Amino acid sequence: MSVELRTMVLGHFLVISLALNAGLLYRNYCGGEHKSQNIFSLKNECKNSSSASTMAFLETKFQPSKPALSEVIDLDHGDPTMYERYWQLTGDRTTVVIPGWKFISYFSDVRSLCWFLEPEFANAVVRLHKLVGNAVTDGRYIVVGTGSTQLFQAVLYAVSPPNASEPISVVSAAPFYSSYPQITDFLRSGLYKWAGDAREFKRDAPYIELVTSPNNPDGLSRAAVVNRDQGVLVHDLAYYWPQYTPISSPPTDHDIMLFTVSKSTGHAGTRLGWALVKDRETARKMTEFIVLSTIGVSKESQLRAAKILHVVSDSHEQRGGFDENEAFFEHNYHLMTRRWKQLRAAVEKSKLFSLPEFPTGKCKFSGRTFASQPAFAWLKCEGETEDCEGFLRGHKVLTRSGKHFGESTRHVRISMLPRDEVFDQFTDRLASITSSSSAST
Amino acid sequence: MSVELRTMVLGHFLVISLALNAGLLYRNYCGGEHKSQNIFSLKNECKNSSSASTMAFLETKFQPSKPALSEVIDLDHGDPTMYERYWQLTGDRTTVVIPGWKFISYFSDVRSLCWFLEPEFANAVVRLHKLVGNAVTDGRYIVVGTGSTQLFQAVLYAVSPPNASEPISVVSAAPFYSSYPQITDFLRSGLYKWAGDAREFKRDAPYIELVTSPNNPDGLSRAAVVNRDQGVLVHDLAYYWPQYTPISSPPTDHDIMLFTVSKSTGHAGTRLGWALVKDRETARKMTEFIVLSTIGVSKESQLRAAKILHVVSDSHEQRGGFDENEAFFEHNYHLMTRRWKQLRAAVEKSKLFSLPEFPTGKCKFSGRTFASQPAFAWLKCEGETEDCEGFLRGHKVLTRSGKHFGESTRHVRISMLPRDEVFDQFTDRLASITSSSSAST
Repeated sequence: MSVELRTMVLGHFLVISLALNAGLLYRNYCGGEHKSQNIFSLKNECKNSSSASTMAFLETKFQPSKPALSEVIDLDHGDPTMYERYWQLTGDRTTVVIPGWKFISYFSDVRSLCWFLEPEFANAVVRLHKLVGNAVTDGRYIVVGTGSTQLFQAVLYAVSPPNASEPISVVSAAPFYSSYPQITDFLRSGLYKWAGDAREFKRDAPYIELVTSPNNPDGLSRAAVVNRDQGVLVHDLAYYWPQYTPISSPPTDHDIMLFTVSKSTGHAGTRLGWALVKDRETARKMTEFIVLSTIGVSKESQLRAAKILHVVSDSHEQRGGFDENEAFFEHNYHLMTRRWKQLRAAVEKSKLFSLPEFPTGKCKFSGRTFASQPAFAWLKCEGETEDCEGFLRGHKVLTRSGKHFGESTRHVRISMLPRDEVFDQFTDRLASITSSSSAST
Repeated sequence: MSVELRTMVLGHFLVISLALNAGLLYRNYCGGEHKSQNIFSLKNECKNSSSASTMAFLETKFQPSKPALSEVIDLDHGDPTMYERYWQLTGDRTTVVIPGWKFISYFSDVRSLCWFLEPEFANAVVRLHKLVGNAVTDGRYIVVGTGSTQLFQAVLYAVSPPNASEPISVVSAAPFYSSYPQITDFLRSGLYKWAGDAREFKRDAPYIELVTSPNNPDGLSRAAVVNRDQGVLVHDLAYYWPQYTPISSPPTDHDIMLFTVSKSTGHAGTRLGWALVKDRETARKMTEFIVLSTIGVSKESQLRAAKILHVVSDSHEQRGGFDENEAFFEHNYHLMTRRWKQLRAAVEKSKLFSLPEFPTGKCKFSGRTFASQPAFAWLKCEGETEDCEGFLRGHKVLTRSGKHFGESTRHVRISMLPRDEVFDQFTDRLASITSSSSAST
């Protein structure tokens, strides 16, 4: 394996570790607030002495404050807090109300192959795909998961030969999603094993190829690269939505397609994803995995995601009092356009970095022709800087090094989805970096 | 391995399979309703053509109907629908309201070791344990999981030696929870391996012993049985609540204790459990497992569980307008007492079965002295019947055979937590079985 394994856990500890080592201030995400707090005042780790009621907790409002110049800007994770503001604008239209007697049973619909799938969530998924036209749903099984991370593991379990003498190889073309290697290998499964960059895979043996399109980290559209017999393709389409990339025609029609609310609507805390699956036996085994892993999926999350996906559709059909410029994908398309323009201007000003260029394409959803404006920026340090992540860390910008994606350390992945004031602070800081010598920390 | 592996998946298909084979009616759990439906009219598997709005969905009320004499009574799973009625009684006091902009971020509290744990849920857990006195929380780490099933796997990952030459043995004294073997082995992990009945474990090697107390399936209080060096104990205390069993003094103080809302308050659909963990490194690795498995836990579920656990505490502190006989554990203690009395009367009448007897103990929570009244009945067929599960299936009562728990087929496990009308129907039917010859099906 050519990449150093790492996860959000490690990223999390990196932030804490940095703060502890340097006495820096860091951000507190708790309760939707965004404020500075001194690490040394912390008590009651993993506990909380507040006696605030749930309703008071709910009434807490998001109160942005501009990060101080000295503050660490964390763009390591793809935490999609950019979307908070849009959902505040929708007001009560996206509120869900859940009485205490709901969701006692394990079962959502005993008639369904995926019996823990809430029918209303399935309806909302089908409605949204039909509106956007990004994936075929007719004749597909829907399997719901606790985020697409769980669904990815469900697929590995479902398509691995159960009685093979050795684990099946799991590959993806570099740069690939940095968590794939560790998620595949952390339990040392006898069913499947990470085998690295798909372009280097030469064995004449069964394999699973992960195709992330648009790709995380670099935002490019992807197709399978191995293209041999005995291969199973898994398409992770988390970012195939019209705020990020043109939707082409006809709708995608792969055997196994994965989606998540984290990247489509921004509700990462809801931990909800779905798979569209052509083959009944694959869907059945994925369902079996999720039963063995977590006996189904939070029904509260499914109810809420159903509501949110329906409101996205409503906003484009001008139902529920939405006007045209409040439509979800329109609003967030324009936001992403502004952010990419702002980032490219900062890169231009600094002269120390470069960004990928994307081909333009016609989006059959919006009718607009545009170049992709991905959820991550795949930034390259030009000139003499070999360790781009370390260089930016010296400037108190936390990013994820290219080495975790099976690529060079000259690249870093940067989240494009923080809150407005963090993004502004980031581009200001990037534009001000004009010398390759390290900042003092 | 001495037991046949099986899971809720298989149980689910068994119901469908039975219905398909025999043309029986079966129950539809969808939307909280409980009604008969012909299996042959099913369409749109895994999809739903209803266009009902989320609010209409929420307004659906539980409308019980008495199962027909010909109907299959499914007591195979421990689906805790008994609790629905209590939560209906509490009305608006347990309702949660979630606006669309909540839970965008992955993070709940970046200061916490378990950074996806909602502080308000942690508060509610600590408050309830302090009220009931069933477990020590001071100085413990709280790790939240997608049900205790995920937490069980998180523990296996956390305490298995990462670089051992062979997987660590996982054992539990028979009869043990029927899902332990398959959950341990389904990914063929190189870290841990199911090794069967703890009483038969003779190897001088590291091991993990699962101690479920009160035990699933037989309801007895349990202590570790291997008691050798190199052992890690995991205490599953899902049923250690005062509606089921006397709470003894002092509060339990084991290294790793697992709990779940499914069995304490009945909210199985919420998929939420918690672990109380003494050792920081174990809690850190459990957190790491949950990040790799699902990148945290549904925040909607945590918010709702926080509300529900707080209302349970309120009901005993006579806050929020509860009077004494509406207190959660009191109400459900009396319900369990009635159900066990009713079951023992039916067994007495039939003369073909027997049930365990439980020692009495003083409950320091209620002050009452009583014998356990578990969430499952561990029923034994007396006389010539060797296959108790098959015998009861002949009478259209679905149960889980003792063989899945590492015990004889003379035993079956029966859920004591169905809705009232199902439980009444079950005891009526059991009392009417007076001959060991199979019913015609």
